[in-house]
Amino acid sequence: MSDLIQITYKISCPPGVSIEKLSMEIALEQTVEVPLECIPTREIRESVVGQVLEIAPVRTEQHQYNVKIGYHPDLTAYQIPQFLNLLFGNISMKKNIRIVELSLPDRLVASFSGPKFGIAGLRSTLGVFNRPLAATALKPLGSDPARLASLAEAFARGGGDIIKDDHSLADQPFCPFRERVSQCQRAIARANSKTGHNTLYFPNISGSWEQMQAQVEYVVSQDVKGILLSPWLIGPDFMRYLAKQYSLIIMAHPAFAGTYFHDPSHGIKPAILLGTLFRWWGADISVFPNYGGRFSFNPQDCRELSQALREPWGNILPAWPAPAGGMSLDNIGEMKKEYGQDAIYLIGGALLKHSQDLSVSTRDFMEAIHSNFPKQPEVSAKEMISKRPQHSWAEKSFGKILEHLPLQDDFCWTGRDPFEYKQKEQADFKDITRHELIGRYGESTSFDLRYFQIEPKGYSSPEKHRHEHVIICIRGQGILRQGNKAILLKEHDIAYVPPFQEHQLKNESDQPFGFFCIVDHVRDRPIKLGVI
Amino acid sequence: MSDLIQITYKISCPPGVSIEKLSMEIALEQTVEVPLECIPTREIRESVVGQVLEIAPVRTEQHQYNVKIGYHPDLTAYQIPQFLNLLFGNISMKKNIRIVELSLPDRLVASFSGPKFGIAGLRSTLGVFNRPLAATALKPLGSDPARLASLAEAFARGGGDIIKDDHSLADQPFCPFRERVSQCQRAIARANSKTGHNTLYFPNISGSWEQMQAQVEYVVSQDVKGILLSPWLIGPDFMRYLAKQYSLIIMAHPAFAGTYFHDPSHGIKPAILLGTLFRWWGADISVFPNYGGRFSFNPQDCRELSQALREPWGNILPAWPAPAGGMSLDNIGEMKKEYGQDAIYLIGGALLKHSQDLSVSTRDFMEAIHSNFPKQPEVSAKEMISKRPQHSWAEKSFGKILEHLPLQDDFCWTGRDPFEYKQKEQADFKDITRHELIGRYGESTSFDLRYFQIEPKGYSSPEKHRHEHVIICIRGQGILRQGNKAILLKEHDIAYVPPFQEHQLKNESDQPFGFFCIVDHVRDRPIKLGVI
Repeated sequence: MSDLIQITYKISCPPGVSIEKLSMEIALEQTVEVPLECIPTREIRESVVGQVLEIAPVRTEQHQYNVKIGYHPDLTAYQIPQFLNLLFGNISMKKNIRIVELSLPDRLVASFSGPKFGIAGLRSTLGVFNRPLAATALKPLGSDPARLASLAEAFARGGGDIIKDDHSLADQPFCPFRERVSQCQRAIARANSKTGHNTLYFPNISGSWEQMQAQVEYVVSQDVKGILLSPWLIGPDFMRYLAKQYSLIIMAHPAFAGTYFHDPSHGIKPAILLGTLFRWWGADISVFPNYGGRFSFNPQDCRELSQALREPWGNILPAWPAPAGGMSLDNIGEMKKEYGQDAIYLIGGALLKHSQDLSVSTRDFMEAIHSNFPKQPEVSAKEMISKRPQHSWAEKSFGKILEHLPLQDDFCWTGRDPFEYKQKEQADFKDITRHELIGRYGESTSFDLRYFQIEPKGYSSPEKHRHEHVIICIRGQGILRQGNKAILLKEHDIAYVPPFQEHQLKNESDQPFGFFCIVDHVRDRPIKLGVI
Repeated sequence: MSDLIQITYKISCPPGVSIEKLSMEIALEQTVEVPLECIPTREIRESVVGQVLEIAPVRTEQHQYNVKIGYHPDLTAYQIPQFLNLLFGNISMKKNIRIVELSLPDRLVASFSGPKFGIAGLRSTLGVFNRPLAATALKPLGSDPARLASLAEAFARGGGDIIKDDHSLADQPFCPFRERVSQCQRAIARANSKTGHNTLYFPNISGSWEQMQAQVEYVVSQDVKGILLSPWLIGPDFMRYLAKQYSLIIMAHPAFAGTYFHDPSHGIKPAILLGTLFRWWGADISVFPNYGGRFSFNPQDCRELSQALREPWGNILPAWPAPAGGMSLDNIGEMKKEYGQDAIYLIGGALLKHSQDLSVSTRDFMEAIHSNFPKQPEVSAKEMISKRPQHSWAEKSFGKILEHLPLQDDFCWTGRDPFEYKQKEQADFKDITRHELIGRYGESTSFDLRYFQIEPKGYSSPEKHRHEHVIICIRGQGILRQGNKAILLKEHDIAYVPPFQEHQLKNESDQPFGFFCIVDHVRDRPIKLGVI
């Protein structure tokens, strides 16, 4: 049974109607979509049709039942669109069915990697520990890039942590996306160089299917570290893709999702839709309407949602709740009680209203946070690096952080034995060894330093990927092929491999060819290619 | 006013609450998201904030008002995600607001081209005129490609018009997408060559963001003429993109959209969501639950939806209503009355149930249609031209990035002249130069590669910081002081400086000491220290 997706539906069942029949109708509707008697084989009847596992009356509500149905994970194709369809595709068009619990088998969970940064990774990026984060939004819509950039700068000067685009900022004629991003990011950098803090700016990615990836590439080129996304506007699988493909902190916004939970007898619980699912698909942060603001969440919704984001869940990192929507500085004490320190307090309009100067308002915001959360001593390096996110796809290395790696004879480093280059069955290569030197032993560098050595006539596997290589030849000489170009690398020559450039390294000499290769620590998987 | 997007909301307004205030709240929420007094300019107040155009009580319902608000089309960026956000982004999370009317200015309508085939185009492809089309679905989920192909063939033999994948058929392990598509398409072609009719097979496109376009390419390569899409599962803009980019007939499915209309006091009318919008974004056919079936639509919902799909609308072609969901052959007379001939009668489970042999059932289906509509002569299908998609993101310019930095004499690299180490007044150092090699020229690496050279008796400034250093000695030898430790670095030795470790580099030899230093691209400023 733990191999099944288990979905619990709260169902209204008026007197005289059979709850067993209603339950079976759901189990059929969400799978075979034919009457029982039209199912051609026993196998389909037994392993494709949902299995009604449990029917229990809801104690507090008359004529309500919690019905648990189990589904084989293969039905989802291990992909988001069909998973959503299985979850609530056709039955979204029936009345009085609400999904109140969801339990996913490990095999399905493993299809997506969850947040890349999560709580620890964002803390380490910011260098902020032991207090909640302070965030605001760039607004109002209608402002030009210069006005928004000056707000971003003021917020950064005031020492805030994250300033995101309002989620209605797209690529409007009066505020073009690229101008906004470059001006705001430069403003933040200017302020950061003065404050020494590392305030982050998250632009909103919103555009046509053709444009959005170019927007993300642009954002990366501007050294932006995170983005805002509204999965229900741009397609939830696009968030999953970006989380996997880029090293960007992802803040997910609930725009357009409210209909799924506004009716307590229909839809999907917010803790599932904005908590479990967003986290599973890669959101580092989930923005949601705090209770008591101008939206319709109650304290229990918020509590369950925060729990779904932060509770232990196998290898899926915990994510940040970001309560928002009509909050003000006066709420911070109450937010502390409700959310504690591992939360992002997102105050928008009220911060703008608080004083004429956003840097002053931000200082007051930070003051209110600091007065609620006592200042902490400098965190030790060890503590920080123990919380570092790992790129999920690469095998972990085991070893200690070393502060000194003296070169031994024949290009090996003390404490860093060579690895196999890759698994042979996964790539085409010859006579090459890999030495993982820095970055895989608990350091918190955003890059890894490796040394590769290719023996005479050897070569690396041809590949391409989003992440870049920096290559430094330190032994002998070799050939770097980039597309159709061949670059001869001699000792201390440096090469740069741009994103998505096909490349391969070869040793055509009669001496070993050794080089350092520096890469981003969190990076995409190479795309395998035929020999170039 | 005809230049504005006009949205009519039905709003509940309990006695004692001001409907004017509620209306203004929506106009602000959907645009600037700040209180009126925080709007910085008159221009934003007048042309960005929604304009309340009309407030009228609903005659038939107490405490209900129809409120019409106008928005400038520029706010949408002329793109679907931000259009949806303006339509119902944040207010989806408020209760008791339902969109009941939508009027779009010509300038905005022109952003998308609507159906490519529409009613006339699909008739011409099929060669079927003056009668409704007969459609069914390949099911049940769990069947292998061979079983589905034999159903497709039977339907085509029986003379049906369109057979679509059930929308839960994705790329499951037990029924891989490509096998299914190729087997079903070949089966249809086989049958068509016998019947002389042109039955069409529409596979369901459902997969990850990375895969879906390849699925579409595959479908085109198999000479498939149309596809099924569930825009609310795969992202509605992806439908718009496919409609624009390919010559495929597009059938849109409402899966996962039911929450938007299940509550008569909340959400968006089906006629708008599945009618106006789907048609505008390129659907040739919109599938929806017919009244009287197993879903919750009423006759008025269905009537308004069909009207929204078929009524004259500038250059936007009319699209097909495809009522479905629990229909049987007995309903055809009633469907004729309700939908007439320009509709697709989609009968799924009931057709399978009708007899053991789907070709027999289909003949009965066609018989029932022909007996209600006079027979028409056949017309040959038009030829389709398929276009190749373009990846917009594949190319990118990189400014002064260099892919090859050969070492020159005396440890300088071509194209990378040495810098001053630091500004003298800001730090204490002696006889040291800095070469910025990679990371500052437009690369998107998360690290920078620098080379430093310290002359005999020289030293770097003592400092500490959050970011880490990775140091690789490549010339001569030098001393790295870490706190009280002194590490001797010789050629190709590597050192790691952990967070907040005090450190300094010195050359106590009589030859130059040169080393690479790799750091995070985004990093904190060093804290200056006295000489250690």
